[in-house]
Amino acid sequence: MTGIKQKIEEANRKTIDILIAGQPIWVGCKPAIEVIPNMSKTTILHAGPPILWVNMCQPMKNGIMGALLFEGLADDKDEAEKLAVSGNITIAPCHDYQSVGGMTGITSPSTPVHVVKNGTNGNFAYCGFHEGTSPNGLGWGTYDQESLNHLNWMRDELAPVLDACLKASGGINMKQIISRAIQMGDECHGHCGAATSLITRELAPYISKMNIDKEVVNRAFEFLRITDIFALHVIMAAARSIVEPSKNIPFSTILTTIARNGVEIGIKVSSMGDEWFIGEAQKIESVFFSPEWSEDDAAPDIGDSSIVETVGLGGLIAAASPAQEFALGGNSSSARKRTGEAYSFCAGEHTSWTIPDLDFRGAPLGIDVRKVISTGFTPTMDTATAHKEGGKIGIGISRVPIEVFEKALRAFSKKQKGGEIK
Amino acid sequence: MTGIKQKIEEANRKTIDILIAGQPIWVGCKPAIEVIPNMSKTTILHAGPPILWVNMCQPMKNGIMGALLFEGLADDKDEAEKLAVSGNITIAPCHDYQSVGGMTGITSPSTPVHVVKNGTNGNFAYCGFHEGTSPNGLGWGTYDQESLNHLNWMRDELAPVLDACLKASGGINMKQIISRAIQMGDECHGHCGAATSLITRELAPYISKMNIDKEVVNRAFEFLRITDIFALHVIMAAARSIVEPSKNIPFSTILTTIARNGVEIGIKVSSMGDEWFIGEAQKIESVFFSPEWSEDDAAPDIGDSSIVETVGLGGLIAAASPAQEFALGGNSSSARKRTGEAYSFCAGEHTSWTIPDLDFRGAPLGIDVRKVISTGFTPTMDTATAHKEGGKIGIGISRVPIEVFEKALRAFSKKQKGGEIK
Repeated sequence: MTGIKQKIEEANRKTIDILIAGQPIWVGCKPAIEVIPNMSKTTILHAGPPILWVNMCQPMKNGIMGALLFEGLADDKDEAEKLAVSGNITIAPCHDYQSVGGMTGITSPSTPVHVVKNGTNGNFAYCGFHEGTSPNGLGWGTYDQESLNHLNWMRDELAPVLDACLKASGGINMKQIISRAIQMGDECHGHCGAATSLITRELAPYISKMNIDKEVVNRAFEFLRITDIFALHVIMAAARSIVEPSKNIPFSTILTTIARNGVEIGIKVSSMGDEWFIGEAQKIESVFFSPEWSEDDAAPDIGDSSIVETVGLGGLIAAASPAQEFALGGNSSSARKRTGEAYSFCAGEHTSWTIPDLDFRGAPLGIDVRKVISTGFTPTMDTATAHKEGGKIGIGISRVPIEVFEKALRAFSKKQKGGEIK
Repeated sequence: MTGIKQKIEEANRKTIDILIAGQPIWVGCKPAIEVIPNMSKTTILHAGPPILWVNMCQPMKNGIMGALLFEGLADDKDEAEKLAVSGNITIAPCHDYQSVGGMTGITSPSTPVHVVKNGTNGNFAYCGFHEGTSPNGLGWGTYDQESLNHLNWMRDELAPVLDACLKASGGINMKQIISRAIQMGDECHGHCGAATSLITRELAPYISKMNIDKEVVNRAFEFLRITDIFALHVIMAAARSIVEPSKNIPFSTILTTIARNGVEIGIKVSSMGDEWFIGEAQKIESVFFSPEWSEDDAAPDIGDSSIVETVGLGGLIAAASPAQEFALGGNSSSARKRTGEAYSFCAGEHTSWTIPDLDFRGAPLGIDVRKVISTGFTPTMDTATAHKEGGKIGIGISRVPIEVFEKALRAFSKKQKGGEIK
């Protein structure tokens, strides 16, 4: 009976070691179809666990319709909607394609994506670009002409500039960037200004060497200059690349995925492979950008960005980012409380990512289903809030509901044939 | 009798307001002789209060000899030494020339300097470039050929690139950069990696637009990429520009300068104009880079960089930079203790520079001679440690000795003709 407990401990330690060992290298920026395996001209990826069109929240539907317009597959909203339900379009989770996506996570063939290679294991991961400071965009679930123009610009100018710059630089080690960014007050989910600054500083020496029109290059780095959150989607791809080899460790009870589609939230557990454990997407405890908005206007929790919590960032290291916590309406003690909870439900601590305010204690790492159940604390996620009809209207904190951990633990127990699991 | 106390309070409030109102804009990088008023072809500036050649510490003598070689005014060490004592060279404190200099502070006519304009008052200030990560250089009190070559490169390539980039950008508001950098863990003296990253991000959009050889531009930004401390000397010039208009406020007991020359430390007090109050340069509590070095090898406290403490940065906001404190051998509570002391001897708090870890309390601002005397706490300075023969051998913490405050307070009292000053 004690045998299985020991097996779980060993498996979890192994999982933690893999999460720590990952060396995510940001190597390029390419249209999705050029790099994501099995992506077709008619594939649209979305955030969170699988969901049928009819069940989708409006922001996600809007994102898909916007993507069909962006791809030239439809000429207007009606055509787009018809096509979306026609069965002629493959609609699938980003997570099934080694990818993640912010908020709606809509990723279509032409979407420019960050390409991150996990140097330790050789696997790749992908994440579409953050669309910037506008409250509109496919990620936020709107598809006005300005957002589509901006997508075109990202595809035609921003991505090629960054790709050329990354090639010249030999790639950027995101494990190091994240490590330094945490020292600089980024929790690497809501707050990514340090990471964006460090990325720019890494690329700066190569800017002069690119053979690309000066004005085009200027516009690309002006976008990075004004977009503190830019690095988030690189970090998400990095996190996605880190978790992949941590999957399928027999007996491991460590989470490898947290993802939301605006209706449901799903988690994956290492030893349970790619099985989703699904619950209801939660309300976000939001700080709204305008008094005109309230909880009634908000879509439930949405996006794959919670992959960063899976690797020990975001809400888990709230204590590293007083500025983020302050923006969320908290203070340094509420931040430390969130991180304190995370230590109670995590199986380990990161050895390279450390929290200055806690005298450089390693970030809590490896959300352990058993510990979540036994402590009753569930992971918090720093997130953005979308309007239920689309558009960014705030930032906030959400929690992974306990029910998904209960489902996962029950399934895990069943798989272990009723052996002792605690 | 209460009249003078009230006058002092009002004067100090006015001084604080001026320190807060300063808007230092980094506008250019030029050879000293092109921008520093009264600089001549035979002027050499140094850190700290005035000092005669015969009394100088060896690193400062080395710096001056190196500068004479750099300028082509001497061909070898012996010629340089003869020239230095000949009376044909003007040797004067940086502070007398609206300038500051790091460590030895040696600034000669060709030295590239940062030009910062205080947009609020229109005054300018200057600071030579930080020489980078090498333990050698005129600033550290050595003058090997490699250091002289590096100075040539900074003058011929780095400064023109940054100057062109700054011109294209319209200048960088260092008040904002400092504000953001503090949120990112810089105390802006020993730790400036965030400021350097933010500066690079501000300049990045303009890199593509300069008509300068690609390889030259590449080398310039490669230097910024690897030199976390680069921004310190821009911040020093910014601080120097901020304090200038805070001088000569009648009845003000606020410090406007702290500076050390390796033998003596001097402070200036607003109402006492440019009078120096001098004490012995202190030993630095150092963390040495190698076990081969100990306190016996170290030069006493040296450099004008303590101008940053005068404007509420560095040691005063240790609590903002756990990473810096950790490097100094401390922890988050020793950092908070240093900042706590600073609140006790400062007359005010900054309204734009806030400390995340203290729930965004304003940085302690305006070192008040009276409060230093009444509390017994003296300002700590984050600093680097030079070998007594030259070369960087560590980092550390130094303190302004109480004796200079006693001298200043006595002189102030005398000036107020014995009126009540407490």
